[in-house]
Amino acid sequence: MPSPAFPQQESLEQSLRAANQRFYAAFESLDFGQMEGIWLHEDWVQCVHPGWDLLVGWDEVRDSWARIFANTKRIKLALSSVRARVEGEVAWVACTEHVTSLFSSGFDEALVQATNIFVLREGEWALVARHSSPLPPETEQTVQ
Amino acid sequence: MPSPAFPQQESLEQSLRAANQRFYAAFESLDFGQMEGIWLHEDWVQCVHPGWDLLVGWDEVRDSWARIFANTKRIKLALSSVRARVEGEVAWVACTEHVTSLFSSGFDEALVQATNIFVLREGEWALVARHSSPLPPETEQTVQ
Repeated sequence: MPSPAFPQQESLEQSLRAANQRFYAAFESLDFGQMEGIWLHEDWVQCVHPGWDLLVGWDEVRDSWARIFANTKRIKLALSSVRARVEGEVAWVACTEHVTSLFSSGFDEALVQATNIFVLREGEWALVARHSSPLPPETEQTVQ
Repeated sequence: MPSPAFPQQESLEQSLRAANQRFYAAFESLDFGQMEGIWLHEDWVQCVHPGWDLLVGWDEVRDSWARIFANTKRIKLALSSVRARVEGEVAWVACTEHVTSLFSSGFDEALVQATNIFVLREGEWALVARHSSPLPPETEQTVQ
């Protein structure tokens, strides 16, 4: 069987996709400890939640997740159009999130476009930046 | 005078900020040739314009700029909260864009949050990914 042309690059992309999946698994779990383990805890990490201003530094990012988790009863995230790119020890994943949330006050369905940036630290991909933003609902997108 | 602790890193961040400025100058110029020179022309580059779906590959990204430039008479982009991060030969800039546009059909003011990812190629920062998304108007943001 032929071996892949760039085995190391291929396995880095596989581990990147796995890290991205772990982020969404942590999000769905609403387990703050899991989410904490995904991010690099540095003062330059950043996050844009849909419609929010930019948050900078692990303190702000951590607090935002604590708030989101506290206000969410259940969340389901399905992904589509996942695009992953590795450039040396930095990588990013763009994907569309199909989000179903159950809050104390009700129920919400949303389509979100996300770019998640990771850096390789001690052989593991750590999340360092996330930009997520609302997309128009799917019904609108199919009308041409 | 003491020299900076990491002169190379400092100059890389300076050149990154300059590359980000060149992107906005190209956008304001509505000169397609300038915009073309900012991007890496690869099939994996990506762009999310505010409220648009993800575009992948230079062909799609190029066509989107051609369309935007054709439909815009004048545009002014002022930046705030510019955050730049260099990680080896990859870097990204997060910033808030205060956009004033003049179209054939009218006038628009918008606040946009952007993450621009660059890679170093032959000593120059080339734009490879952009995620931009609308923010609520400033008047709403100042009401707490």
